[in-house]
Amino acid sequence: MPMIIDGKAIAEKVKAQCRESIAALKSRGITPGLAVVIIGDDPASHAYVRSKVRTCEELGLHSLKIQKPSETSQEQLLEIIAELNADEAIDGILVQSPPPPHIDEGAVVRAIDPAKDVDGFHPLNVAKLAMDDDSGFVPCTPFGCQRLLIEHGIETSGARVVVLGRSMIVGKPMALLMMRNGIGGNATVTVAHSRTRDLASVTREADILIAAIGKPHLVTADHVKDGATVIDVGINRVVDSTTKSGYRLVGDVDFDAVAPKCSAITPVPGGVGPMTIAMLMANTIKSSQLRHRATS
Amino acid sequence: MPMIIDGKAIAEKVKAQCRESIAALKSRGITPGLAVVIIGDDPASHAYVRSKVRTCEELGLHSLKIQKPSETSQEQLLEIIAELNADEAIDGILVQSPPPPHIDEGAVVRAIDPAKDVDGFHPLNVAKLAMDDDSGFVPCTPFGCQRLLIEHGIETSGARVVVLGRSMIVGKPMALLMMRNGIGGNATVTVAHSRTRDLASVTREADILIAAIGKPHLVTADHVKDGATVIDVGINRVVDSTTKSGYRLVGDVDFDAVAPKCSAITPVPGGVGPMTIAMLMANTIKSSQLRHRATS
Repeated sequence: MPMIIDGKAIAEKVKAQCRESIAALKSRGITPGLAVVIIGDDPASHAYVRSKVRTCEELGLHSLKIQKPSETSQEQLLEIIAELNADEAIDGILVQSPPPPHIDEGAVVRAIDPAKDVDGFHPLNVAKLAMDDDSGFVPCTPFGCQRLLIEHGIETSGARVVVLGRSMIVGKPMALLMMRNGIGGNATVTVAHSRTRDLASVTREADILIAAIGKPHLVTADHVKDGATVIDVGINRVVDSTTKSGYRLVGDVDFDAVAPKCSAITPVPGGVGPMTIAMLMANTIKSSQLRHRATS
Repeated sequence: MPMIIDGKAIAEKVKAQCRESIAALKSRGITPGLAVVIIGDDPASHAYVRSKVRTCEELGLHSLKIQKPSETSQEQLLEIIAELNADEAIDGILVQSPPPPHIDEGAVVRAIDPAKDVDGFHPLNVAKLAMDDDSGFVPCTPFGCQRLLIEHGIETSGARVVVLGRSMIVGKPMALLMMRNGIGGNATVTVAHSRTRDLASVTREADILIAAIGKPHLVTADHVKDGATVIDVGINRVVDSTTKSGYRLVGDVDFDAVAPKCSAITPVPGGVGPMTIAMLMANTIKSSQLRHRATS
């Protein structure tokens, strides 16, 4: 039987480390602060934001939730960002994705001070990741996936890693992170995607397979080498009339079919999911540490 | 017998297209300009700079060579960059690498206006490459390698590409370029490097193998699948007492052993080398076109 990678437990460990760092900062009179901006009334987005704010409260971080109607203009949103950039109490700024369609999300991300871009999506943080510069912020989901591997002692140096998906949110930063020279890196990384031919033969090369392509149960037993580690980033909503909500969440991996072949695998939910918020907290604390080192 | 990819001929084709673009710009009263800064007296660096200036003259680009002694301070160099950033006649700026050891090359690159960074090494251009944003500049050598493939009609979409080397000059931008959604992209890309285990088994997966690891003749027949395309970025100096200079230039690929297995291969010299300068010219013209679109 494979080891089930317990994302909740590792997220708790990361949060415990966050608490220690926060205590150290508070002893210097500093409370790290995260601002979350949400535009519109998408229920899923609001659920994510609540969860982020709740985690801040749980850890003792200062949190600021800025909620605006979907009619908010690009200009108004950029004004909010400018105020948060200038706000000394705020170390991290994120705008919950997706914003309403009239908002230029790229321009909003570029407007965030890179030193407060704890989502790691600002071009300067993307470049730092590519350039092996540790002073930037790594996007929370790939950063969390790497942390799961590190915490479980899964060797990445020299390992064959296949990343399935080439988005800027997960796939590409994941690949750049795993090929970096450092702990949890030095892997031989392949990026597979919608244009990959004979996908199963490519994914079967993986010692570590990271699925982030957003297709429910795309990865079957045929896609996985015996003894591989499988990290499932997918969170897909599929119709299920047997549930109260009428749907359920499934990963990109057909867990029941794949798990028996693996040495380790993440479940959905309870795998990568909890890590994303934990790494957001870790990034916010890093920002606070760096900002107060710079000015003191 | 394999097709020998003639980098000189394709570079001439790129330069012919450059001439047309320059003529169109000149008819609007615009002459694209490239500034090359060289610090110190390294003979190889001076040879590269001469070659860049000569190509500018050949095509009718304005070129400005700024040559300073190796004692030049970081501050003085940054002043030169600031002047070139402000110089309306200059569309492209590059500082010949490597500068003397007391110069912080990263800081110098970051000081160049990203809109004039025709080497494509500024963090904002690195990020644009990662983010599939065509408005930036792609580093000349990987850009030239991709062009060789496009000009020879070698299909990249869905192809297995193995990039050997993970430098920011060639390996990583090459990988990002080949996985982009677009012409000459959409490949399934693997990045192999010094930590890769069983390298030959990884490189044998390649339909297109791009060697950029800087080790003379590392790639042997055993590393290459029958019918593969091999692009050799390496330019290594090896001792050879039979030559007048006492050395000769060899690639990362053992050409004589590998060529018989390939469908197409680049020689060294005469393969990738001539493309690098041609793409530098193309980038400078692109900069001029973008800058004069923006202000007119």
